[in-house]
Amino acid sequence: MTWQLKDFVLLLSPQGKRFLVQVEPRKFSTHLGELDLEQLTHIPQGGVIYTHKGVPFVTLKPTLYDFIHHLKRRTQIVYPKELGYILMRLGIGPGSRVIECGAGSGALTMTLAWWVRPTGCVYAYEREERFAHLCQENLVWAGLLEWVEIKVKDIETGFEEKEVDAVFLDVKTPWLYLPQAWDALKGGCVLGILVPTTNQVSEVLKALDNLPFTDIEVLEILLRRYKTVAERLRPQDRMVAHTGYLMFARKMLRKGD
Amino acid sequence: MTWQLKDFVLLLSPQGKRFLVQVEPRKFSTHLGELDLEQLTHIPQGGVIYTHKGVPFVTLKPTLYDFIHHLKRRTQIVYPKELGYILMRLGIGPGSRVIECGAGSGALTMTLAWWVRPTGCVYAYEREERFAHLCQENLVWAGLLEWVEIKVKDIETGFEEKEVDAVFLDVKTPWLYLPQAWDALKGGCVLGILVPTTNQVSEVLKALDNLPFTDIEVLEILLRRYKTVAERLRPQDRMVAHTGYLMFARKMLRKGD
Amino acid sequence: MTWQLKDFVLLLSPQGKRFLVQVEPRKFSTHLGELDLEQLTHIPQGGVIYTHKGVPFVTLKPTLYDFIHHLKRRTQIVYPKELGYILMRLGIGPGSRVIECGAGSGALTMTLAWWVRPTGCVYAYEREERFAHLCQENLVWAGLLEWVEIKVKDIETGFEEKEVDAVFLDVKTPWLYLPQAWDALKGGCVLGILVPTTNQVSEVLKALDNLPFTDIEVLEILLRRYKTVAERLRPQDRMVAHTGYLMFARKMLRKGD
Amino acid sequence: MTWQLKDFVLLLSPQGKRFLVQVEPRKFSTHLGELDLEQLTHIPQGGVIYTHKGVPFVTLKPTLYDFIHHLKRRTQIVYPKELGYILMRLGIGPGSRVIECGAGSGALTMTLAWWVRPTGCVYAYEREERFAHLCQENLVWAGLLEWVEIKVKDIETGFEEKEVDAVFLDVKTPWLYLPQAWDALKGGCVLGILVPTTNQVSEVLKALDNLPFTDIEVLEILLRRYKTVAERLRPQDRMVAHTGYLMFARKMLRKGD
Repeated sequence: MTWQLKDFVLLLSPQGKRFLVQVEPRKFSTHLGELDLEQLTHIPQGGVIYTHKGVPFVTLKPTLYDFIHHLKRRTQIVYPKELGYILMRLGIGPGSRVIECGAGSGALTMTLAWWVRPTGCVYAYEREERFAHLCQENLVWAGLLEWVEIKVKDIETGFEEKEVDAVFLDVKTPWLYLPQAWDALKGGCVLGILVPTTNQVSEVLKALDNLPFTDIEVLEILLRRYKTVAERLRPQDRMVAHTGYLMFARKMLRKGD
Repeated sequence: MTWQLKDFVLLLSPQGKRFLVQVEPRKFSTHLGELDLEQLTHIPQGGVIYTHKGVPFVTLKPTLYDFIHHLKRRTQIVYPKELGYILMRLGIGPGSRVIECGAGSGALTMTLAWWVRPTGCVYAYEREERFAHLCQENLVWAGLLEWVEIKVKDIETGFEEKEVDAVFLDVKTPWLYLPQAWDALKGGCVLGILVPTTNQVSEVLKALDNLPFTDIEVLEILLRRYKTVAERLRPQDRMVAHTGYLMFARKMLRKGD
Repeated sequence: MTWQLKDFVLLLSPQGKRFLVQVEPRKFSTHLGELDLEQLTHIPQGGVIYTHKGVPFVTLKPTLYDFIHHLKRRTQIVYPKELGYILMRLGIGPGSRVIECGAGSGALTMTLAWWVRPTGCVYAYEREERFAHLCQENLVWAGLLEWVEIKVKDIETGFEEKEVDAVFLDVKTPWLYLPQAWDALKGGCVLGILVPTTNQVSEVLKALDNLPFTDIEVLEILLRRYKTVAERLRPQDRMVAHTGYLMFARKMLRKGD
Repeated sequence: MTWQLKDFVLLLSPQGKRFLVQVEPRKFSTHLGELDLEQLTHIPQGGVIYTHKGVPFVTLKPTLYDFIHHLKRRTQIVYPKELGYILMRLGIGPGSRVIECGAGSGALTMTLAWWVRPTGCVYAYEREERFAHLCQENLVWAGLLEWVEIKVKDIETGFEEKEVDAVFLDVKTPWLYLPQAWDALKGGCVLGILVPTTNQVSEVLKALDNLPFTDIEVLEILLRRYKTVAERLRPQDRMVAHTGYLMFARKMLRKGD
């Protein structure tokens, strides 16, 4: 099966450099020569395309992981190692309605949108106009805007949705917005939070103590890559040591709620 | 909104013990007294139910993560920290067709089924009849069998599907089945593998060297939980140190393929 | 060379159970039968001794590591993974004079004493009489008391020594004693601190900001053991995830000091 | 107390750059201006020295850790996180006789020499003349050569010493030299090994199975540093993910040995 017009293609150079492009009638310049992207319509998926200098690029099908690595970013993004775990914990799936607050460049927005398809919706709050724009741009690029409502809005006065299946906060002072998150959530459902410092974790824990949330969890995820040499297997020399602390809690009802 | 008949409910005891039950007209015995599960139809989601001894259990909405922790297991299962990352890397989503080999108790099967809904399909191969049964039982329990075809079959002679979006191998000798995985995969798509030992990683790397796979990755994921005390924040004393090594590669085509 | 009277011997059972004993004319009971410890004087170092039931125990030379694992403890002790790094960082060696505060059961005291031999001295402060006793008992047992002065004393009013080569604080509120540590230290020398929680790390950092200390370091050390099977090499299933955070700083002088 | 001629001094710039110098009548150029090192004899330890441009450098007492970070290296060195643990495990101390094989640039040699003082000895084997030279140069620099005998020699035919307290192998194929290590060791004493790859660990484990060694341990040590900001405490973004696997075993005697 050959690539089609509009398809996304991950191009992999002999040295492992990656480009995420779309099949269209234009030239694409790399450090190893120029590629004619329209030519991809004659190349099978997984096949090789050559630059005008004769350098081969393998043509791969981009995954969500690749889209996230290639989005335009002007903020710290949530990384795949956390994204995957968030997915498992939030209790969402195809059809879910989920609020995300602090959309930033849209890595998490994109991930949630991908997985609530075809009938769910992500309500993506972002206070700063410029990040909301960037997030929207990234969603359009990835073809996922259809499942997202971006809202440029401070959440101090609360979210506009009720009875959502999950809420995720990726903001500087999440402890200030826990009551709003509680109001928006369905009973028994999950709130997720990402913060980079231990001081923030402590602040959130303190605030959670005074609210009807339960089943609180704090954790961090470390990912260690290995060099891929069969006879000399060993971890890579360096790794990312920290992105953030993940926190989860579930909404409970008090008597009378 | 109260719980409905047939709903799954995660019951959380005051000490954090969990039970995953279904709303139905029966009694459920815990170490803290008996619960009348039908009574849940009068309790709002997130609300509290009391045992005959007056002990309160919070009623929470189970997530995929909870289903996996409560499935019946007779094999080592894939853990949520790996499951989430696998999802991000495989390049699947609602509608995908994916092969899993070595279904075991069905933790990964369940996860894949959850996320390929509503139109995708998981082809779950399992050589041992008794594990295939267990896997099916777990899928029925979680209401996910509709999106799975379980196949009791050795894969030496190959998979029955072609042009699938992803293949995942969770077997003892994955290096023996790489050609079969290659045959089944769409061009440019992702193969994932899980193995517990470094020797197996080396064997797979050696075998991949002789096959048209590219973009090879080996990694491990560590998850560290924290005690949830605001004023004395610190990691828990002990953690899971190892579950397995994750490997990923993508199918490329050779000239003439 | 056979074992001598008074020698310490590490006995290793076939299943890996360890006992640290001294050669003397007495019987020693194990779950695998009785050993006659005097008989060790006829057994070469590294040789095997048999219980009256015929079970062999290998006789090994205990290292500092073994002494620490076998000391009597009634407090959380400092672990070898931290002890080794502390040694490297404190800037001590044979002949050093070093203050330790919060001696507890004496694991760090023992380590410092071992390494400042034959001419150095450890000043071990411990506020609680009962722990000071335990510490002394452990030092006598290990034959290291000669290089230690145990002081049952609160350090609020300062240490009795001046111009020491290093100070180590293993107390609950180290931030209260930084001026005292500064007073006792030689210029340019190292202060070490161990605390279990992130809140304590923050408190110490805040206090250090207002004192003439420099070159501040905060770190944690993780140790991961592997199963020792050549053909199935993999990490052990579980590991210690946290013992404490290590902090280091060096005394600088202000103008006029 | 002021610095004396010949003293080693660790100079710390305002931005944290470090230089390890000796007090002597010469100028020392830094990127922030020139320092007159003889002037240090008028500066108290821990005090500040200024470059001709007026930039202050704090003068600190170098520790073993600093010497190791500043030695001249032309090989991969053993790092302090491993060095400290090796010390704890080898069973050495002041007065010990220990063999090191694969001295390289001399980081471990220097560490062992430091801690066997004042009466012990390190027998440092190094096959390559140029590394032996470098190791010697580093030991002279650190004032530790007195406790080391460097031997330019392949160890295939065995070590020249017998009944040593410990042996450490830092060579490419340690499995080839286990019988030689066994011969040199005292009964019941510890052999240590450092290798970077899992394949080497497996090779050593296989070889140990056929020799009278016991109490085998394989482990790795991870060190994670934190940013030292009290109000925003968090790990540094990146860390060293791997230096090597440490292995330990103890010599036992067979019947008749």
